[in-house]
Amino acid sequence: METRNVNWEALLEYCRNLFMSLGMSEADAFVSADNLVDADLCGVESHGVSRMAVYMKRLATGVVSKDARMAVLQEHPASLALSAQNAMGMVAGKYAMERCIEKAKENGSCFATVNNSNHYGMSSYYVNMAARENMFAITGTNAPPNIAPWGSYQAYPGTNPIAFAAPTHGDPVLLDMAPSVVAMGKVILAAKLGKDIPEGWALTKDGCHTTNPKEGMEGTVLPIGGPKGYGITVFVDIMSGILSGAQFGPHLNNMWKDFENPQNVGHFFLAVDISKFVDVDVFKTRVEQMAREIKALPKNPGVEEILMPGEPEQRRRRERKEHGIDMPLVVYEELKGLSDIYSVAFPL
Amino acid sequence: METRNVNWEALLEYCRNLFMSLGMSEADAFVSADNLVDADLCGVESHGVSRMAVYMKRLATGVVSKDARMAVLQEHPASLALSAQNAMGMVAGKYAMERCIEKAKENGSCFATVNNSNHYGMSSYYVNMAARENMFAITGTNAPPNIAPWGSYQAYPGTNPIAFAAPTHGDPVLLDMAPSVVAMGKVILAAKLGKDIPEGWALTKDGCHTTNPKEGMEGTVLPIGGPKGYGITVFVDIMSGILSGAQFGPHLNNMWKDFENPQNVGHFFLAVDISKFVDVDVFKTRVEQMAREIKALPKNPGVEEILMPGEPEQRRRRERKEHGIDMPLVVYEELKGLSDIYSVAFPL
Repeated sequence: METRNVNWEALLEYCRNLFMSLGMSEADAFVSADNLVDADLCGVESHGVSRMAVYMKRLATGVVSKDARMAVLQEHPASLALSAQNAMGMVAGKYAMERCIEKAKENGSCFATVNNSNHYGMSSYYVNMAARENMFAITGTNAPPNIAPWGSYQAYPGTNPIAFAAPTHGDPVLLDMAPSVVAMGKVILAAKLGKDIPEGWALTKDGCHTTNPKEGMEGTVLPIGGPKGYGITVFVDIMSGILSGAQFGPHLNNMWKDFENPQNVGHFFLAVDISKFVDVDVFKTRVEQMAREIKALPKNPGVEEILMPGEPEQRRRRERKEHGIDMPLVVYEELKGLSDIYSVAFPL
Repeated sequence: METRNVNWEALLEYCRNLFMSLGMSEADAFVSADNLVDADLCGVESHGVSRMAVYMKRLATGVVSKDARMAVLQEHPASLALSAQNAMGMVAGKYAMERCIEKAKENGSCFATVNNSNHYGMSSYYVNMAARENMFAITGTNAPPNIAPWGSYQAYPGTNPIAFAAPTHGDPVLLDMAPSVVAMGKVILAAKLGKDIPEGWALTKDGCHTTNPKEGMEGTVLPIGGPKGYGITVFVDIMSGILSGAQFGPHLNNMWKDFENPQNVGHFFLAVDISKFVDVDVFKTRVEQMAREIKALPKNPGVEEILMPGEPEQRRRRERKEHGIDMPLVVYEELKGLSDIYSVAFPL
């Protein structure tokens, strides 16, 4: 696959400038771009700048608001019910987690929901924010339908991701997972790159196995552990969609296809102040002990190293910050095309 | 398999009397027995009265305390760090979730941890308590090692379960899952019943596939979704074991083998007051709408009905309350044997 090597800071600035060209504030444009570029740094390209074109189109058509302010619907010492008022999901997510952290520092923990929002990028972004503040954190979001409930072949819940982070003295231990064998974003990216997908990732809309990513996009991706993955995605939807008062299941509009009706995505956030439970330093030291012990276990044949959750992404981030991001040419060209459309200088 | 039909109320009373015969208070004996019998009612026999003999032995030897009182280590408006002081896990779990619900009603949500505890039975018991109080709830616990980190064949984390519940006007939607293809309890029960286990459930201690449950008990059970299930079990251990200040991973003692050293199990609990986010009636109605829509989806060949998480267990509970529990003879005989040992009348 042909690629272009791209500097992450230049990429971040370019994406920020694109968002600002539509009238977004510098702060909102920065956080939206930062989440996308961090996904590319981590190797989660499905959630990276390959989505810039669709985000720009949504902002330009006004189906996503470029300048909405977050509204507090209800607030209590350990709860926060927010409306994003159709802002970018990244703007909503950053605000919600920031407020959660602040309230958890005061009261021990805080649970927040956001309704009337949009795709919020990579979930790990928000739990990373919390880990930097010595918080244990969880977040999740719903997404348009692409997993079939166990026993059916028709999509109802999305590949609703859930992410957890626990701080250490170095990088946090971090799990950011879709409850499916793969995220639908990986199927979408394969379609964009013209690549086949492995058997076992997706079913066609009639419930047949497929290696064609376009058929998979029309169909469903398989949940992990059958009824268990189905159960997880249902509960992420209940927390994100129903507890928040957003939409849920197939009532969520599709960001790739519908440029008239806002998505009404929902998210949830939990921050827990570790110092209200145990000494933060002891917590971090014990998580590091766990990691050290796990990494020292005997390895299966062919395994070079046992990794903690989050470790592959953190390594890629460091490596790509230093050596640049090798971006597929098709994504590079699409990004370059946005320069003309929105009259923003292309520095890559 | 030969069975005896047993009335659940008589079974509950018998188990309660057994616990009381060792000097437990009536309230503590009741909640310990109620959790076990509810597991048998729900068809989760691995967590049911087949564990009575080991619980009794642990209480009788004093490796579990029969009369410890819960201690509050730290308390804030939305957090509660508790020590069970080596009480039965069910006693600790009920206390922790009750206090969480109370504090969530006041402040919106509450996160609690418990350390120095023991096996707390079926996780669903605690989220059920919360759902009855119009709470959204999550709980989890750690357990002795029986899942290998992804890339290794040596057990480190346990099949640490996590449970979620959301209330409706009827039964809650409820997910109570081990992050493994099956719970180790099912392998243990198969060994007790002398039955083989299916390939794909467990590995031997040398990392080979096995259908022998005794070999599986010495080895590991496989995580769902490979690295994803591994990630979930690590995070349940971090919340239950490290955030609480309990033990974690292989440092947890085994309840089946070690009658000298307390287990130092940890649990976590989250209660979220739905009314602080959306109208409770609207929440329940929308969860019911989700269930109705999912159940009306087209079915895969051979599927009679699409079920919501928790539905199979709730149906079994109703059916067995009415028609009795068909208990494997080996479990029945073991229970009967406890009557002589502890001088408690056997009414079954």
